[in-house]
Amino acid sequence: MIIVLKQGASPEKIEELSRIFNKMGVSVNAWHGTQETVLGLLGDTASIDIDFVKAQPIVASVKRVQEPYKKANRKFHPDNTVITLPGGQVIGDGSLTLIAGPCSVESEDQICGVAQRVKAAGANFLRGGAFKPRTSPYAFQGLRAEGLELLQEARKKTGLPIVTEIMSASHLDLFEDVDIIQVGARNMQNFELLKELGKLDKPILLKRGLANTLSEFLMSAEYIMSGGNEKVILCERGIRTFENFTRNTLDISAIPILKNRSHLPVVVDPSHAAGITWLVEPLSMAAIAAGADGLIIEVHNDPARALSDGAQSITPDQFDIIAKRLRKAKAVLSAEGLDTGVTAI
Amino acid sequence: MIIVLKQGASPEKIEELSRIFNKMGVSVNAWHGTQETVLGLLGDTASIDIDFVKAQPIVASVKRVQEPYKKANRKFHPDNTVITLPGGQVIGDGSLTLIAGPCSVESEDQICGVAQRVKAAGANFLRGGAFKPRTSPYAFQGLRAEGLELLQEARKKTGLPIVTEIMSASHLDLFEDVDIIQVGARNMQNFELLKELGKLDKPILLKRGLANTLSEFLMSAEYIMSGGNEKVILCERGIRTFENFTRNTLDISAIPILKNRSHLPVVVDPSHAAGITWLVEPLSMAAIAAGADGLIIEVHNDPARALSDGAQSITPDQFDIIAKRLRKAKAVLSAEGLDTGVTAI
Amino acid sequence: MIIVLKQGASPEKIEELSRIFNKMGVSVNAWHGTQETVLGLLGDTASIDIDFVKAQPIVASVKRVQEPYKKANRKFHPDNTVITLPGGQVIGDGSLTLIAGPCSVESEDQICGVAQRVKAAGANFLRGGAFKPRTSPYAFQGLRAEGLELLQEARKKTGLPIVTEIMSASHLDLFEDVDIIQVGARNMQNFELLKELGKLDKPILLKRGLANTLSEFLMSAEYIMSGGNEKVILCERGIRTFENFTRNTLDISAIPILKNRSHLPVVVDPSHAAGITWLVEPLSMAAIAAGADGLIIEVHNDPARALSDGAQSITPDQFDIIAKRLRKAKAVLSAEGLDTGVTAI
Amino acid sequence: MIIVLKQGASPEKIEELSRIFNKMGVSVNAWHGTQETVLGLLGDTASIDIDFVKAQPIVASVKRVQEPYKKANRKFHPDNTVITLPGGQVIGDGSLTLIAGPCSVESEDQICGVAQRVKAAGANFLRGGAFKPRTSPYAFQGLRAEGLELLQEARKKTGLPIVTEIMSASHLDLFEDVDIIQVGARNMQNFELLKELGKLDKPILLKRGLANTLSEFLMSAEYIMSGGNEKVILCERGIRTFENFTRNTLDISAIPILKNRSHLPVVVDPSHAAGITWLVEPLSMAAIAAGADGLIIEVHNDPARALSDGAQSITPDQFDIIAKRLRKAKAVLSAEGLDTGVTAI
Repeated sequence: MIIVLKQGASPEKIEELSRIFNKMGVSVNAWHGTQETVLGLLGDTASIDIDFVKAQPIVASVKRVQEPYKKANRKFHPDNTVITLPGGQVIGDGSLTLIAGPCSVESEDQICGVAQRVKAAGANFLRGGAFKPRTSPYAFQGLRAEGLELLQEARKKTGLPIVTEIMSASHLDLFEDVDIIQVGARNMQNFELLKELGKLDKPILLKRGLANTLSEFLMSAEYIMSGGNEKVILCERGIRTFENFTRNTLDISAIPILKNRSHLPVVVDPSHAAGITWLVEPLSMAAIAAGADGLIIEVHNDPARALSDGAQSITPDQFDIIAKRLRKAKAVLSAEGLDTGVTAI
Repeated sequence: MIIVLKQGASPEKIEELSRIFNKMGVSVNAWHGTQETVLGLLGDTASIDIDFVKAQPIVASVKRVQEPYKKANRKFHPDNTVITLPGGQVIGDGSLTLIAGPCSVESEDQICGVAQRVKAAGANFLRGGAFKPRTSPYAFQGLRAEGLELLQEARKKTGLPIVTEIMSASHLDLFEDVDIIQVGARNMQNFELLKELGKLDKPILLKRGLANTLSEFLMSAEYIMSGGNEKVILCERGIRTFENFTRNTLDISAIPILKNRSHLPVVVDPSHAAGITWLVEPLSMAAIAAGADGLIIEVHNDPARALSDGAQSITPDQFDIIAKRLRKAKAVLSAEGLDTGVTAI
Repeated sequence: MIIVLKQGASPEKIEELSRIFNKMGVSVNAWHGTQETVLGLLGDTASIDIDFVKAQPIVASVKRVQEPYKKANRKFHPDNTVITLPGGQVIGDGSLTLIAGPCSVESEDQICGVAQRVKAAGANFLRGGAFKPRTSPYAFQGLRAEGLELLQEARKKTGLPIVTEIMSASHLDLFEDVDIIQVGARNMQNFELLKELGKLDKPILLKRGLANTLSEFLMSAEYIMSGGNEKVILCERGIRTFENFTRNTLDISAIPILKNRSHLPVVVDPSHAAGITWLVEPLSMAAIAAGADGLIIEVHNDPARALSDGAQSITPDQFDIIAKRLRKAKAVLSAEGLDTGVTAI
Repeated sequence: MIIVLKQGASPEKIEELSRIFNKMGVSVNAWHGTQETVLGLLGDTASIDIDFVKAQPIVASVKRVQEPYKKANRKFHPDNTVITLPGGQVIGDGSLTLIAGPCSVESEDQICGVAQRVKAAGANFLRGGAFKPRTSPYAFQGLRAEGLELLQEARKKTGLPIVTEIMSASHLDLFEDVDIIQVGARNMQNFELLKELGKLDKPILLKRGLANTLSEFLMSAEYIMSGGNEKVILCERGIRTFENFTRNTLDISAIPILKNRSHLPVVVDPSHAAGITWLVEPLSMAAIAAGADGLIIEVHNDPARALSDGAQSITPDQFDIIAKRLRKAKAVLSAEGLDTGVTAI
């Protein structure tokens, strides 16, 4: 951490501040320029609160040299994290994981029907929302506990492990039999929830918030990991910008950056990023070429009758076509080593 | 709600869609142009999910004419909501409410000391965080339950009602003796929490999310109000933009717009919006002139030793000066009827 | 165009407004609901100024049904525009165009050296800045006229056509012997310049502005095309968001959207989008998979000594490697029909 | 300037880089930590290109300590710049400057009529567009040279100096008799135009770009000032964000920040910021309270017939009312010293 002091900071004040940092376990080196004095902090500065430093009266500005995340940091964990489920399914091993299913679980017929279709098309996981975060209190809020049961029913019929979103730590006991718990974009910084998920031994699919930086995203992963649960899957699902043709703006750079800075698997949600079905395929292609470990795609048996997100859901027939093309793209790029998101230079 | 259909939509499909809308309790009028057909929906369309409409295969685009919020809507509640606390304190009656106190409660001495100082300077409420949403799991997380007790202690000593943030519905019983419960920006769309707060009979200070539109903000207020709790105070605290001189960008337009579209009181948090102490006063002045009902300002006895947000906290001595100037500005503008945020034209 | 009128608009006022629209050459259909009246405008509404409509006292809101661009619109020009240069080079025919070269032309040795290297590596065009838009007046502003001469020299030696940026209509005569004139992001809405370029018979590479919507981008293309010059190449180069890990945020969705709405070729500039060399390859891969017609990549003989943009420039040796990999990715995807940016569903 | 080097940078490479900086006229101090080496640059670093530094292979990251602008910097020019026109009008002396008039000059009757009305209401300057930057090539582009003549006619009749926008350096001779030349938001980084304006001896009203940081804004002012013309008036007119209720988002913080970092006068354009007439007054009130030196307000004799921006234009009758209220607000705040935008703490 590099700290630029204000002009005129007295030696006594500098000494006093240095002692504070020493007590935090880091050593301080001062460098005196003609106008400014700069302090360099050495040691584990991840736990030093940058706001605390900025608040010191003699501090002009601060610059972190080290990333504030440790468990999520590739520097301290050079190998890719590969997540293996009890049933043997694997995420992050270089293969392409396809997670597919409806936005909301609506009925047994619906979820089991979609599950069978996406399984047949080659999906590895079934997604489906039981608890639904809706902007309006008057919109369908999900089947809740019943939805979770229907997902388990669909898993029984197809063998597909299930991915579903949690909205409150108070629902945790209902999620015991869920294979991967999803944290939605709006809860990326629901820190109380993240802490509870950190106590589990179960993969967490963490979605990036609509206006969160990649550094904040990794800090939310760090919340879960610092609690002991290192099975975190990062999910880029579009950020909020001024562009309004799409529902959100897919930040494709997030894939190679997250894979560079972190060792965690990265999946992409083209359905929420775009909000338009005809963009699902090209954005998925781009994600594969940029190194994504997986895709999470909304598939609904009857999008026009979907209780949520119909406009971005594709049909099982369409998923048949797209899944085939995505697998093919992955295969031909992978055969040439062009699908890693890591530059050859 | 105006729905533009795709070219070539068949009369049968249009008829089918109209029947669906009829079942939702609205009537449909079709207008056939040479190229497009447009449907106009009449009745209470607030409960119609716009995503559902977009998902219909024959729909090209949709436009809401009515706002999707009802309880929060000034159209159905023309008078300003005035919130009165059991102790007689009032928010939204045209006076300027000053809410002041430290970011975090740190000790009894600290919170009681600050409380006495801000009370002496004319604050109406004491703020202080017991549960702290921090980006890093390694940062100070607040004194939690103990912090709430210390706030109550400070209230006992000063008579100031307390405003403090809740981070999870599971903590609700701890907040029984809190006067105003704050929902932080990161939880603005924590819908499960909002639903629980809707069951209380206690004012909720709801902060706008960092990347949420004003319409979404009012929909979150609607979540609380639709549950039965209509005592919602809206708080603008800066949004996230590309500008990085300030921590966030204060959206000053939010004040007159929220007061125009809604009847709820609007307060502004200049401390979080700016993140810099020397901006607290000019932004507060602007907020008053734009019609804000109150201000929530971070005051810390020793910002350089604050466990959080020191860089944006002012001292009690500084609050003495600023509070006096803000009260004066409010008084001179108010005397001329220039502080309402409502245009005279 | 659909116009929702305010409640209480009188029949006389509606009649008056309708006559105004009739004079503009469009016909008006009124649809009277119980509360609102809606007007539907039929005919060529592209030339109707939406601001004019909004300004009418009886108008509540307006919605465009037709896109405001015509020449750039795929609806009126279903086939892809393929741009062929006098020397036979082609952009937009399904092949991958590689445009490479330094940010700034610095000397004859430098530009000719880089030109020979990128040609050998398979580039189709040489890029290089003679006039440089720099944020600071104290930064290197380019070799200007001399730079253009050196580019022509490099073209003579390599046969590569040259792409270089114009910053003012007053420099147009200097650009007579330039093969493709580039309009930089900061000049995307320099309408006086666009009008002048519309009079030429020469391809224009138009970069998207840092905060411009895709609709505005196409309107800027329309400026050039409406003047008679239909040889416009659209270039996505990153937009400005809150994320600051990268210099800008590459909007990958722009590729399939621009190709869907327009018939013009779309190229991507990963160097400016990222601002970091190790992101150039993964972003280029993503762009190819999303359907880009070409890439414009900064290559400098000695990035550390570059007079501008060194941090995002790769070396000729690195370009050798990357160009080969990009060509390979294009080839394997293309062989399977997976590189078009158009969904198969 | 503080430069953090990559781990493992060799002493030779560090020495080599230091020599380069020495040649640029700055001295270098190296500070060797256990893991990183940090270089501190002393002297006039404003002319050092930060991109150049980032491009050095041994550099990990860079932090500017000094602002890159000099002429615009309050540090080197502590007193407020007060701009006095030949006719005696003054901007930046603590009074409130009102600039009013239509978006576009449309006819002699129109501009002279509006001029007389706004003069009677207390405006100090007449604004009016002759050259109009329009998103669409099919929209009204302004009366151009004729419009400038009509503005001069209006000045003759009222004595109000005129403010009007230039769109290209090639029009400069037409602007000889204009009192204040405006640079629009879309041309804030039209550097060739800025350079030409730097050669004049005439005030320039420079509007902030829709997505430009305050630092970039001041660098554009620096372009003009470094050419010799120090009469620059900064204009905040709203930035582009995700919020779409308003046309743009007024960045109210820009006022106190620009006045803190720079000595130049700051005016605010509430009409373009909001795009809605009923927001013009509250945003103007906020701007005054935050320390603005002036306001630029769109006034049109018949907004519904305006050829541009009618939706945000108020009528002369409305301007009568608002101008009176704004003058009153300024007066009562000023009497108490509450209108400076400078905090008392």
